[in-house]
Amino acid sequence: MVEIKDMLGDRFITRYDGRKVDELRPVRITRHFTDAPEGSVLIECGSTRVMCTATFTPSVPRWRKDSGLGWVTAEYAMLPRATSERTDRDSVRGRIGGRTHEISRLIGRCLRGIIDMKALGENQIQLDCDVLQADGGTRTASVTGAYVALVDALRWAEEHHHIKFADKVIKDCVSAVSVGIVDGTPMLDLPYLEDSQAMTDMNVAMTGAGEFIELQGTAEHRPFTRDELDTLLDLAAKGNKELQTAQRAALAQD
Amino acid sequence: MVEIKDMLGDRFITRYDGRKVDELRPVRITRHFTDAPEGSVLIECGSTRVMCTATFTPSVPRWRKDSGLGWVTAEYAMLPRATSERTDRDSVRGRIGGRTHEISRLIGRCLRGIIDMKALGENQIQLDCDVLQADGGTRTASVTGAYVALVDALRWAEEHHHIKFADKVIKDCVSAVSVGIVDGTPMLDLPYLEDSQAMTDMNVAMTGAGEFIELQGTAEHRPFTRDELDTLLDLAAKGNKELQTAQRAALAQD
Amino acid sequence: MVEIKDMLGDRFITRYDGRKVDELRPVRITRHFTDAPEGSVLIECGSTRVMCTATFTPSVPRWRKDSGLGWVTAEYAMLPRATSERTDRDSVRGRIGGRTHEISRLIGRCLRGIIDMKALGENQIQLDCDVLQADGGTRTASVTGAYVALVDALRWAEEHHHIKFADKVIKDCVSAVSVGIVDGTPMLDLPYLEDSQAMTDMNVAMTGAGEFIELQGTAEHRPFTRDELDTLLDLAAKGNKELQTAQRAALAQD
Amino acid sequence: MVEIKDMLGDRFITRYDGRKVDELRPVRITRHFTDAPEGSVLIECGSTRVMCTATFTPSVPRWRKDSGLGWVTAEYAMLPRATSERTDRDSVRGRIGGRTHEISRLIGRCLRGIIDMKALGENQIQLDCDVLQADGGTRTASVTGAYVALVDALRWAEEHHHIKFADKVIKDCVSAVSVGIVDGTPMLDLPYLEDSQAMTDMNVAMTGAGEFIELQGTAEHRPFTRDELDTLLDLAAKGNKELQTAQRAALAQD
Amino acid sequence: MVEIKDMLGDRFITRYDGRKVDELRPVRITRHFTDAPEGSVLIECGSTRVMCTATFTPSVPRWRKDSGLGWVTAEYAMLPRATSERTDRDSVRGRIGGRTHEISRLIGRCLRGIIDMKALGENQIQLDCDVLQADGGTRTASVTGAYVALVDALRWAEEHHHIKFADKVIKDCVSAVSVGIVDGTPMLDLPYLEDSQAMTDMNVAMTGAGEFIELQGTAEHRPFTRDELDTLLDLAAKGNKELQTAQRAALAQD
Amino acid sequence: MVEIKDMLGDRFITRYDGRKVDELRPVRITRHFTDAPEGSVLIECGSTRVMCTATFTPSVPRWRKDSGLGWVTAEYAMLPRATSERTDRDSVRGRIGGRTHEISRLIGRCLRGIIDMKALGENQIQLDCDVLQADGGTRTASVTGAYVALVDALRWAEEHHHIKFADKVIKDCVSAVSVGIVDGTPMLDLPYLEDSQAMTDMNVAMTGAGEFIELQGTAEHRPFTRDELDTLLDLAAKGNKELQTAQRAALAQD
Repeated sequence: MVEIKDMLGDRFITRYDGRKVDELRPVRITRHFTDAPEGSVLIECGSTRVMCTATFTPSVPRWRKDSGLGWVTAEYAMLPRATSERTDRDSVRGRIGGRTHEISRLIGRCLRGIIDMKALGENQIQLDCDVLQADGGTRTASVTGAYVALVDALRWAEEHHHIKFADKVIKDCVSAVSVGIVDGTPMLDLPYLEDSQAMTDMNVAMTGAGEFIELQGTAEHRPFTRDELDTLLDLAAKGNKELQTAQRAALAQD
Repeated sequence: MVEIKDMLGDRFITRYDGRKVDELRPVRITRHFTDAPEGSVLIECGSTRVMCTATFTPSVPRWRKDSGLGWVTAEYAMLPRATSERTDRDSVRGRIGGRTHEISRLIGRCLRGIIDMKALGENQIQLDCDVLQADGGTRTASVTGAYVALVDALRWAEEHHHIKFADKVIKDCVSAVSVGIVDGTPMLDLPYLEDSQAMTDMNVAMTGAGEFIELQGTAEHRPFTRDELDTLLDLAAKGNKELQTAQRAALAQD
Repeated sequence: MVEIKDMLGDRFITRYDGRKVDELRPVRITRHFTDAPEGSVLIECGSTRVMCTATFTPSVPRWRKDSGLGWVTAEYAMLPRATSERTDRDSVRGRIGGRTHEISRLIGRCLRGIIDMKALGENQIQLDCDVLQADGGTRTASVTGAYVALVDALRWAEEHHHIKFADKVIKDCVSAVSVGIVDGTPMLDLPYLEDSQAMTDMNVAMTGAGEFIELQGTAEHRPFTRDELDTLLDLAAKGNKELQTAQRAALAQD
Repeated sequence: MVEIKDMLGDRFITRYDGRKVDELRPVRITRHFTDAPEGSVLIECGSTRVMCTATFTPSVPRWRKDSGLGWVTAEYAMLPRATSERTDRDSVRGRIGGRTHEISRLIGRCLRGIIDMKALGENQIQLDCDVLQADGGTRTASVTGAYVALVDALRWAEEHHHIKFADKVIKDCVSAVSVGIVDGTPMLDLPYLEDSQAMTDMNVAMTGAGEFIELQGTAEHRPFTRDELDTLLDLAAKGNKELQTAQRAALAQD
Repeated sequence: MVEIKDMLGDRFITRYDGRKVDELRPVRITRHFTDAPEGSVLIECGSTRVMCTATFTPSVPRWRKDSGLGWVTAEYAMLPRATSERTDRDSVRGRIGGRTHEISRLIGRCLRGIIDMKALGENQIQLDCDVLQADGGTRTASVTGAYVALVDALRWAEEHHHIKFADKVIKDCVSAVSVGIVDGTPMLDLPYLEDSQAMTDMNVAMTGAGEFIELQGTAEHRPFTRDELDTLLDLAAKGNKELQTAQRAALAQD
Repeated sequence: MVEIKDMLGDRFITRYDGRKVDELRPVRITRHFTDAPEGSVLIECGSTRVMCTATFTPSVPRWRKDSGLGWVTAEYAMLPRATSERTDRDSVRGRIGGRTHEISRLIGRCLRGIIDMKALGENQIQLDCDVLQADGGTRTASVTGAYVALVDALRWAEEHHHIKFADKVIKDCVSAVSVGIVDGTPMLDLPYLEDSQAMTDMNVAMTGAGEFIELQGTAEHRPFTRDELDTLLDLAAKGNKELQTAQRAALAQD
């Protein structure tokens, strides 16, 4: 990561949890976390913990019927006490919050981005990402974990002869990571404390080939420059590469 | 359990999982399962797994203001793939299902039944019971686990000087267990397979003193007699005693 | 009722309305209360008044199609000024309250408990219980009244050749009554004033054969003992027997 | 009714229920129908039966605070089997239907039209009109019945010293009736059978002074002429006069 | 307009915008306001501006299938800042307000009143009336504008061979106008300022033949007499005649 | 635009509407489009037409009280026939769609990104962006138009002494534009036809200083490379610069 070193120069940055600016939090991926789903993964990125399940259904929604194509969709939700203050359930409020909607849609797009819908055939995969504990980066952890659950569901579908080759359905792997600018310094993988004071905050989903699936950068506190963007993208590329190594390692086990 | 033996006589009953008719499934209670809540418990009863969190708030709902009394309330929910078929989220359907409502209210009543509202003072405890995996008895496991989370939240409140003595707030412990009649035989702690074919199905919440807090028996397939009821209550008493031993053991650890 | 006398010994209990502890409020069942429904009953238990209608439909909900089985379901609601304080309509609040849901489900289970779904065939009966005036025991009055409306609807269906024999569809009669412990004394059929101060409150639905369909006991204020439970069940048995006599008398008229 | 005779000339019109074209259905007004509300009226117009309750609250909605003025509002609803086909409850559908909304608003306007809001002071009256049985004219019966319930609630408020003089609050009486053109013939007070085949259908609310509060005419099948309108208004004037006689008679009793 | 002059006698009435009591605000009808809809009209009545679109669908709702008849329906809505104070969106509040419902239904009935459903065949037309700016008379402007959009949609359908003759589907034209009594004086076409202080307010939809489709008069502040009604209807007849001239002129252009 | 020329080399790209790949559609900004709002703008980008209003309220939402800071929020919606197929209203479906939520939030963030909340003081600005006609780029047109409405509302607030200096509240201007890769070619400002077949689609909001406020890139059909991203950002920078010229021109008029 030449660029990052250059940018920071000799300045010595201490993050509150002792990590370097380009260092991920510890990642742990547990497959077969629960028994019922076709894919069930617990992903832990530092203190953030998301349960990702994949449900395989041998049919598609009505609007997709007779297209020969499959469908992948996602729903994201947070348990009420995933956060330090309790948040009311969407079901109690009677409507899904805008943030929930937005994240669900993001996860769905990321996973659809690496699926060959024709190879999937008229089958549907529903990804449920439920945050048990939230410490920043819940949406990116969801993408990274959901990919593993998706692969498990496709392997299950192959075994049960719903699809021919799971491998042909998956065009590449996908992971996501957050990056941001805190106190003027671009950083990788922000926990809540850093995220809440970031000037800019960006979520980047990338394929194994290093290409982008989703890129969402927001500057509520201070606009960011093209140079800052470049550094953030370098950090994200590094982080995603490491997350994909963790995904491969988890999927290699049995 | 003299009565049960008597009733069954010499008949040899094999349950599909090898248990005796008056035997609980293995119980495991993990405290401090997540970090944010004042009380956070994972309870596992066989394959049923429920995450119970307790949120302490130093105030009460508006209708309870200036009463000098506290309040305890509960919400129950199931993750979409807790079950073998995926169920739609209440939030997506835009309304809380009747079953969810009913169970939330049951859990709330059970916990309120052992709390001294005066000693609690104008503080509120919200219990959230989220089923990660469902294999029968999710509502009773919720009660049993929520009690432990509630105690932890009260201990936290004592430490943080919101209440004086946690012990004075809790009048007794409470646990709950399901019993039912399967193929004519009364049984303790039904997993889904037995529950779905039970003629009668009963949930019994009891205090440490062996008294009843809640009793809900339903006969969709065949009415039950007073004698059968007596046997079911004996089984429930035995099961609850054992669950309370597990609660105490968990709370003794640090 | 030997047991009750025994328990109370020589103590002289005066209920505020002059009834004995094991005495029902006056019951009045008016059939054909309105013209449109296949079954239409006004049941009055003391000041509690519930209008119960039964709607017969010669088809079943989609999930029940091609099962050869019928379906019975119930909805309970209270008019806004059934109570001394006006309560907002569920329709205005945009969602059905938890209590309403819970009671609707209870009534449905009670009635399903005495119906032979095979004999009913692929027909549905919807029971609507609308409380015109509430003075305690509205859910139990609903069960008792709905049974009569159900029989009328089945007789109508027999006359109109939708089913062969109404009598074969109904396996037994069902009624329900509330019992509770007020000031330490178990009592039958609690009006609102007693109900609101009861330590324990139980609803018991029984068949004509004296068996249980539903049993729901709750102790918000003080747990109840096994002995108290036994007394309550004796009271409930007595009350249900008398309610069933009233049902039979109403159904004998033409 | 000179005009009506003139218009019909010698033509002999037989209505299916034997009434003359300018004849009301039998009206019956029962006060104190239930005990809890400040005003409680059952009004029967032929087979149409509406329960009208009036709730007096010694305060006004927030937007009306400190205006020195009172408020009157109304809610209309139909029980599911008021009609020959069961209609789903608004609460189950999760939203109030357009027709329900429209009628609730109409009733509210009619009653507000005869109330002196200043004399009422900062008090609110909520009228609930629940249709037990529907055979045409449910909204007009609601207006006519709600007026009587309103008077009772105001008398109650006078007795309980919430207002000084009930009589000063009520500027005039109000009643409503439906008229319509069936097969080319203008008629008074249409039951469902006539209403459903009417070319034009009009609801007319009038004061005791014979002036209009609300006039709603609709021609779904055939536009109506100015002459027809005049005849309809004559019929409505006659009907409302008779309904007001019935109101006065009911209110004279004690 | 003999009657109006007579009634006002020599009194000289100045309306705040300089109009005479029987004078319409300037009307402007712009066809083809947007490109996508089959009919798209912007109608301006003074400062009131409503965008009316007509959507032609070659099928009918399920309940209308196989009837051989078409269907016409309407939806009315106001943009949040059509008014001087911002009003919350119905979508944000999660439910359609009563006023919105009432007006949508009114518009639908008016348009259905001039359509030959048989000639339309099993086709549906949905009218959307969205108020861009509100200065009184939005519902009547919606009716007047929707008629023009409807005609355009039918002409489109004729061109695209969905229907044979647009002219046979339309039995007559329809327009609507508001009238009201302000300070004791009957007036035509009330802007918001007059409307908000009107004692009586009436909306009148009439056909080209001068007959009534809808008549809705409301007296929140003071009942109105039969004589006043007659004057109001004269004013409405004059106004509608002029609006229909504007409709014809707009439809004559190409 | 050196980079773009370079990338495309000699290849001659014809867009279906004759534009060059780095050419915006014609932009037209009409201020004071309606009278009631403090800011009211019609923005037209090609066939896309969005009405943007800004509502100034001299107070903030409750959660923002006593912070000394202002608030800016936005709501986006589409009229039913903005599109070639009619879409149901959110209000009719009873819930706001995910896409609507997502876009509303995006617009809000963009505008907040250039506001000095301290200088705004405890005042709120609500932006309503209603799409009258949709031909791609509705969310970016909304941002660009909402900025102009926002400035007008702040000028109004300055004139009416709610704020001191409108210019101090606005830190910079903001506009947004869409870019995408169609058939392998990066292009600026995609209309619906191009957008629907784009491999990658990106929305870029930038300040007058050329910095980023929001960056949202999505690759549903094919991931995009870092090089492609760079070209897209160049195109977006060019487009935004031109849009800001149009904003300035509109705001210079009076």
